[in-house]
Amino acid sequence: MKLYELCCSDERLFFSPFAWRIHMALAHKGLSFETVPVKFTDKEKIAFSGQKLVPILVDGDETVCDSWAIMNYLDGTYPDQPLFDCEQSRNYAHMIKFWVEATLGPAVVKTVLMDIVGKLHGDDRKYFVESRTQRFGKPLEDIVLQPEEGVAALGAALGPARKALEDRNFLSGDAPAGADYLLFGPLMWGRNSSSIELLAEGDTVMRAWRERMLDAHDGAARKSQSAH
Amino acid sequence: MKLYELCCSDERLFFSPFAWRIHMALAHKGLSFETVPVKFTDKEKIAFSGQKLVPILVDGDETVCDSWAIMNYLDGTYPDQPLFDCEQSRNYAHMIKFWVEATLGPAVVKTVLMDIVGKLHGDDRKYFVESRTQRFGKPLEDIVLQPEEGVAALGAALGPARKALEDRNFLSGDAPAGADYLLFGPLMWGRNSSSIELLAEGDTVMRAWRERMLDAHDGAARKSQSAH
Repeated sequence: MKLYELCCSDERLFFSPFAWRIHMALAHKGLSFETVPVKFTDKEKIAFSGQKLVPILVDGDETVCDSWAIMNYLDGTYPDQPLFDCEQSRNYAHMIKFWVEATLGPAVVKTVLMDIVGKLHGDDRKYFVESRTQRFGKPLEDIVLQPEEGVAALGAALGPARKALEDRNFLSGDAPAGADYLLFGPLMWGRNSSSIELLAEGDTVMRAWRERMLDAHDGAARKSQSAH
Repeated sequence: MKLYELCCSDERLFFSPFAWRIHMALAHKGLSFETVPVKFTDKEKIAFSGQKLVPILVDGDETVCDSWAIMNYLDGTYPDQPLFDCEQSRNYAHMIKFWVEATLGPAVVKTVLMDIVGKLHGDDRKYFVESRTQRFGKPLEDIVLQPEEGVAALGAALGPARKALEDRNFLSGDAPAGADYLLFGPLMWGRNSSSIELLAEGDTVMRAWRERMLDAHDGAARKSQSAH
């Protein structure tokens, strides 16, 4: 099985929050895989997939794109160790996915924006700055948050997860599963692309959860190359 | 079974978003119940419960307070027609509950604030204005949103739910269940306390879902007295 992930100029440094969902999902299921590092400008390398984004999972003859589709593919094809225990929880997690992307994603990217630029390969820098300037409609220097502003924005955005995690070790219950990986993606993005500490010192609930996630599945995430 | 709900000066007009969760949960399970209208200042009427908030469910000798605790009590005691199909979906819904309360609740209350005041019983008006002024730390007139601002704020807050509902009829799947009732509460609050239309005309996805929710369980919500 091959997982195509976004890398920095250091090809061991993976930072796509979407690819991290799948990295963790594969670890959850105990499926071994090979990582294929992809730069932003490596569009030819992934042209076979018929689209331009990672993650891409190649499983024998199957090529599956889009993190949500891959999570569903994995549960369909390898039903042991399900990411979602019932159809209803899969549906609820789908809403949680959109919540993560609408609130946490922007808070993280605005905080680590300049650190990402610094870590990218030369060709990728130009691509990243141009594409993000277009997406935000402003120059990056007008978007980037001071670290303390970023930590505050992310801390506020995490409110609902923090309250749920006051009652249990993982969003999913006693053990991590699908929705935990959805939420974990943006934090791994920050960890692997920036030395900025994204969680406030007093945010003991989210910090403890992050430690548990880093330890999960034999330390799959902690073992990865980080920017720290 | 008795459900203590918050009422306006018109005792048939119920507007607690938390009580509406239970109203719908009871309809979901096909359990018949009697509603006991409670005004904000009727604290003596609910003193037996040992706390000061609705909803309160009295089921024979059992008294259960707090909407989330009541939903769990109902699934534990009446497991047919579960509100949550598995423990994981219950856990995910718990996070969705906190999301609803942190984002949708404030958007609705800031929009319908003055309409609520107008609909309350005389004693309750004073209580409501004083308690909310204290909660917000400002006079209500500095909090209230213009209807179009409120619709925009709620529309933005609903983003993750709208995206999930593009793929299915209810957050829970083909039929409504627990998380749908959590999200529906604030909309019933608006409907039953204000004539302001909370969903933008172009928000066809959320409007269609609201219609389906109003129709659910033999029109349990639509049949209730509304401010429209």
